[in-house]
Amino acid sequence: MIEYTGLNALDDGWVIAETEFDARFLGKFETIFCQGNGYLGLRAATEESYPGERRNLFVAGAFNRFANQEVTELPNAADMVQLEIRLNGKPFHLEKGKIHSYRRELDLRQGELRRDILWEDEHGDQFKMTFLRFVSLQDRHLMGMRVEITPLTKSAEISISSGINGQMTNSGAQHFIEGERRVFDKELLQLTATTSESNIEFVHTCVHQMYEGGVRLTTAPAPSMDRRRVSLTYKLKAEVGKCITLDKVASVHTSHDKEWRDRGAAHQALQDTAREYLSKKAEKGFDVLVNENEQAWINVWAKANIEIKSNDVFDQLAIRFSQYHLLLMTPAHDSRFSVGAKGLTGEGYKGHVFWDTEIFILPYFLYMDPQTARKLVEYRYHTLNGARTKARDNGYRGAMYPWESAATGEEETPEWGPVDIVTGKPTFIWTGKIEQHITADVAYGVWHYYQATGDQEYMDRYGYEIIFETATFWASRLEWSDKEQKYHICDVIGPDEYKEHVSNNAFTNYMAYWNMTKAIECTRKLMQAQSDVYLTLESKLALTERLKEWEDKSKQIYLPQPDMHSFIIPQDDTYLNKQIIDLEKYRDQDQVASILADYSMTQLSEIQVSKQADILVLFYLLEDWFSKETKAANWHYYEPKTLHDSSLSLSTHSMLASDVNELELAYDMFAKAARIDLGTNMHSCDEGIHSASIGGIWKAAIMGFGGVRSWEGSLRLNPKLPQAWERLSFPLAWQGERLQVTVTRGKLEVERLTSGLGELTLLIHGREYVLKDRIVTDLKEAERSE
Amino acid sequence: MIEYTGLNALDDGWVIAETEFDARFLGKFETIFCQGNGYLGLRAATEESYPGERRNLFVAGAFNRFANQEVTELPNAADMVQLEIRLNGKPFHLEKGKIHSYRRELDLRQGELRRDILWEDEHGDQFKMTFLRFVSLQDRHLMGMRVEITPLTKSAEISISSGINGQMTNSGAQHFIEGERRVFDKELLQLTATTSESNIEFVHTCVHQMYEGGVRLTTAPAPSMDRRRVSLTYKLKAEVGKCITLDKVASVHTSHDKEWRDRGAAHQALQDTAREYLSKKAEKGFDVLVNENEQAWINVWAKANIEIKSNDVFDQLAIRFSQYHLLLMTPAHDSRFSVGAKGLTGEGYKGHVFWDTEIFILPYFLYMDPQTARKLVEYRYHTLNGARTKARDNGYRGAMYPWESAATGEEETPEWGPVDIVTGKPTFIWTGKIEQHITADVAYGVWHYYQATGDQEYMDRYGYEIIFETATFWASRLEWSDKEQKYHICDVIGPDEYKEHVSNNAFTNYMAYWNMTKAIECTRKLMQAQSDVYLTLESKLALTERLKEWEDKSKQIYLPQPDMHSFIIPQDDTYLNKQIIDLEKYRDQDQVASILADYSMTQLSEIQVSKQADILVLFYLLEDWFSKETKAANWHYYEPKTLHDSSLSLSTHSMLASDVNELELAYDMFAKAARIDLGTNMHSCDEGIHSASIGGIWKAAIMGFGGVRSWEGSLRLNPKLPQAWERLSFPLAWQGERLQVTVTRGKLEVERLTSGLGELTLLIHGREYVLKDRIVTDLKEAERSE
Repeated sequence: MIEYTGLNALDDGWVIAETEFDARFLGKFETIFCQGNGYLGLRAATEESYPGERRNLFVAGAFNRFANQEVTELPNAADMVQLEIRLNGKPFHLEKGKIHSYRRELDLRQGELRRDILWEDEHGDQFKMTFLRFVSLQDRHLMGMRVEITPLTKSAEISISSGINGQMTNSGAQHFIEGERRVFDKELLQLTATTSESNIEFVHTCVHQMYEGGVRLTTAPAPSMDRRRVSLTYKLKAEVGKCITLDKVASVHTSHDKEWRDRGAAHQALQDTAREYLSKKAEKGFDVLVNENEQAWINVWAKANIEIKSNDVFDQLAIRFSQYHLLLMTPAHDSRFSVGAKGLTGEGYKGHVFWDTEIFILPYFLYMDPQTARKLVEYRYHTLNGARTKARDNGYRGAMYPWESAATGEEETPEWGPVDIVTGKPTFIWTGKIEQHITADVAYGVWHYYQATGDQEYMDRYGYEIIFETATFWASRLEWSDKEQKYHICDVIGPDEYKEHVSNNAFTNYMAYWNMTKAIECTRKLMQAQSDVYLTLESKLALTERLKEWEDKSKQIYLPQPDMHSFIIPQDDTYLNKQIIDLEKYRDQDQVASILADYSMTQLSEIQVSKQADILVLFYLLEDWFSKETKAANWHYYEPKTLHDSSLSLSTHSMLASDVNELELAYDMFAKAARIDLGTNMHSCDEGIHSASIGGIWKAAIMGFGGVRSWEGSLRLNPKLPQAWERLSFPLAWQGERLQVTVTRGKLEVERLTSGLGELTLLIHGREYVLKDRIVTDLKEAERSE
Repeated sequence: MIEYTGLNALDDGWVIAETEFDARFLGKFETIFCQGNGYLGLRAATEESYPGERRNLFVAGAFNRFANQEVTELPNAADMVQLEIRLNGKPFHLEKGKIHSYRRELDLRQGELRRDILWEDEHGDQFKMTFLRFVSLQDRHLMGMRVEITPLTKSAEISISSGINGQMTNSGAQHFIEGERRVFDKELLQLTATTSESNIEFVHTCVHQMYEGGVRLTTAPAPSMDRRRVSLTYKLKAEVGKCITLDKVASVHTSHDKEWRDRGAAHQALQDTAREYLSKKAEKGFDVLVNENEQAWINVWAKANIEIKSNDVFDQLAIRFSQYHLLLMTPAHDSRFSVGAKGLTGEGYKGHVFWDTEIFILPYFLYMDPQTARKLVEYRYHTLNGARTKARDNGYRGAMYPWESAATGEEETPEWGPVDIVTGKPTFIWTGKIEQHITADVAYGVWHYYQATGDQEYMDRYGYEIIFETATFWASRLEWSDKEQKYHICDVIGPDEYKEHVSNNAFTNYMAYWNMTKAIECTRKLMQAQSDVYLTLESKLALTERLKEWEDKSKQIYLPQPDMHSFIIPQDDTYLNKQIIDLEKYRDQDQVASILADYSMTQLSEIQVSKQADILVLFYLLEDWFSKETKAANWHYYEPKTLHDSSLSLSTHSMLASDVNELELAYDMFAKAARIDLGTNMHSCDEGIHSASIGGIWKAAIMGFGGVRSWEGSLRLNPKLPQAWERLSFPLAWQGERLQVTVTRGKLEVERLTSGLGELTLLIHGREYVLKDRIVTDLKEAERSE
């Protein structure tokens, strides 16, 4: 473990501060300090450059495929953040000279990244330097930065080169064909580039204003153009104590943006629009733009504020950090895309969408921001045809969702991964071929959305069709075992990805069964209650025929049962027969996946070792199907064999520990989960934030300790605070209503913020309550009655 | 001007040393310390990374076009030089900690780059670090490096990550489609990649051996694969005073290599061959490979050693540096390619071939290494069809050589360059359209080669055809002026590129005339003496018809004449009428092209200002056509208006100053020319070496002070040493013979090293000498008799 103490929670958990600069840890802070608004994602590389830095700027959904052999990914747009600052002719950076004081902080209240440095160069000259940066939540195309430099000991020559650098790649893959470079009016720069395969034009624009002691400088900077670059260099002599300020406002527009997508070859119009847009913004003045962004964030927090009174202020920080990043990663403006496994914070997983979205991220929006949740479930309808293609290509019927999804819903999982330590070849990645539970997870997401929102219009237009098509996939996927006289599902990967090519993975079989029975239930309901929708879908999908198949087959799916004595459910057909080894050395969270340095994937499959929660996720999704005893027994059996080498693991374990009343274990797991990105593993998030873990932090807190669940249209609240927490208060959206839930030691208060029609029924620790305006209840009593 | 005193000539001009590390000047040393062998060019980026570094590894002739909109260029192969060295967990680099002693030196004797550092980290721990690197002159696919680290104050944890990094781009353009990555036997790595358009497979292979106190370590390093990358990490604890050594041997093979070009899809065989090749090399042991490379260089210098006894040892260094780089830049192994304007040392000019080759580089090989010279003139025959295409596409006949040439001979000049400071748009690059003198320059190169070598076989197979096709281009290019009753050549750029769209550029018109008259002369000679060659070419080119056109038209070409009083020849129709301004501030060689920050190209064309030698080059090429008075007068008229903003300018001025007996001016210009790359302009060669200037150093020394010229098959020697020089001795190849020429103050000695058939006639200062074995002559007397 690396000793590092420079990451702190400040201001009651609103501010994350880096108080010590260490160039080894660039990646960590680039990721956690990332800024964005669901459209733009700007990795927090510093203005000055360091080896190993990763300058990323992504636009949600603007995928491109570099070469036929590769999968599509989010291309790295031009960098507009890097500055070459020279003080008395020498480039400024922090690995030389002397740092007298240093603080970089992300203020979650308004999404601002600030850096304050008192720095002394090699010659003993001191400078005060401050940096401010935002990506506007008010204007999704907009970002801004301010640099202030004050020479403290003697006057200094200051030179700043700033511009647009389109030389960026995705780890070497260049997605853009060079477009135009222009300098307008000596201060506005524009650079365009078009993606090579998807033909999306990116228009990068930026404008500069330079001040000396608060007075706008009018001398023109020196323009410069290079390959894929355009920049300006400002040079001036700064007196002691006089502050030099550079304000830079920048924007990205693309021809893939909703408002441009169907306008064809409107390149010139797009460029002109971008220029006018940015000029107008810049005219408002930098301070106004900063304020507008602040106000937008204040409005968000006013609706979304979750308060945790804990012994450890880090818990409060973690939940806010999670909410902050959930906003950044989610394209709430456009349902053509969804959430990448690393959001828009890094190149990891190439912007692809996994089951992470439905199982780990969607819940947050379901219960906090259902309008955005709808976007996420619409995405799966937009990509339904891709899933149909995948099913057909694999010899199945219905819709087989891709393990990794991007623009179309076709499979985007790359084929080759890290080195296999035995063969010296890259490891073949099987998930895209055989991690098939994703198809049921998508259906579950749809149903979960419906239950939490009651959005019948969504179901009629999109939701039912997804549930029917996925159920049909499973019907075609089942394999009849003559011996067992059951349907099996063979050769899959379950959630536990250290077990490849297993049969009858419990999670997969149960979810397939759930998917088919849900389709049966929906079909019957439509037949009875909604004949118009039924008729439409019948004519499209031949429902009657399918219904019979679902009914016949679902009855005979093999569902692994808990052992009568131990309550253990076998994770798959062979797991429980495998070798048990001492895993202690591999369970260190600072060395994720360290077991792969000693064992190849083939060798791992012969050991009782799990990468992550598998059967436990099932207990969470289908909680009423399993007894508390079964849940507890399996938790204690599988957890010690689990390395938590997936960031999806700890939060699930925490939540399930809450379910089985292991509150301190739950808190321990929550604390670890909350530190996957924010903790002392200084390289865990180099490739980007762990989106699912970020959603998991909220889940462990609100669905775990807050005990929020829904089951078949009824809202459940089973709050249980860990020792360290005194109070947990959170807003909750439920079927069009907004509630505020406050849990203190022994007391639960539910306030109704909206005045919807009729009464709301809640199940609190199993007991029914009718909510009119407010419920206050004694938790000890409620728990007792459970 | 930047103050920097850390560049030194050592060991009698054999060693260039950087004695002070300054990260601002990475580019300079990356370029001048470049290593190679005409096949590989390895830029001298350091093992550790710094922002702004440029890691380049080029393979001669392996061009690729990134996108249709772009021109073809030499792609940047995978990097195998970068190492991540961690000392006690912290990355090693020189911008932090304390440098107690530092020296990096390129030893020209054996092309070795060595670096010795005594470094203290932030905690006060000291390390001795030495680095050695070579690109083998013995095996053109091979390079090697050795790193030695010794902890001096206490034992240390040392970790070194080393591998193959295919994430490299050409300033953002990625030319490669990712291929395979493999680890063999825990120490040999291989990475393949294929160019996207030209479909050339690059196979990068490297093998590692690690020693501790001289004992080979057998513990396996940790392998790692990433996108486009494969690497190994060695970790060990080093005791105080014990040296850790990493030997890395690497190779590059491509499917474009001569021996593979026609083998089709032999990818597997190529990879296997590369692996076997490298394993065999590695088995020999690092020291043996070092020695083999040393021996190859010793053999080169034994034949090519030029000695200058000067007041300033820098002159000796400069000439050796020039010879070193001439070897590096020239693909002597393959006539399918020629010399790029930046050799293989940087991305500048994209590996393209200019008139630089014929006029500035070819002479070195003509008089030093005629076999290599032949490769260069063969290249123009290989690209003759491309030149025919260009002529046809532009509405002309014959062969119109491209201003920038690459694989095919079609025009490769990019269309857009640096910013136009008035419009804010990129500047349109006109050279590819209208800098047409290149076509005559190519013909001149052919003739020059023939005169110096007497290689009739070349002429019969290739040379005549080039001369005839280029003459035919000129015949079709001439424009009849009714008013003047002459043929004009309008709307061109001459050598002086600050004058675009001029008419009757003297250089162009004279060279076109020369080209046509030379074609006439050759045709007549063939008719008389070589009827077989004549008949072949007649049937191919319809010579008889062409002859008439050449004769009719060449007689009437307008050739600007010297003014009767001033002797000034107008550079073009309008130059002498333009405004004269004070150019002093733009003549600083540390600020090349600074005038473009104040004037656009359009504005420049209205001023009597020249970028570079124009008419002076004509005096050099066609020296007998102009009187000494004319040469002197024009030198003094045009030089003060010349900014020497092209690196082709100073050496030409030096040589011509020698011609007109301005020896101290000539020496001054030589000294400046020799410092274009090696001097205190710390950014002049960031984009790569100035190949033409490198050739120019040799020309100014040997053709200027040594006075070596040839004219129509006779060798002339007019040596005139500048004050600073006491002795100049150089080998000389002439029509199959090898001579050694030694000039001292007042004395010339010519020794014949070969015993060819018959006598050799020389013109020394205009007087005929017959060389049998040796001539020793009094120069003062010879000069007097001139």
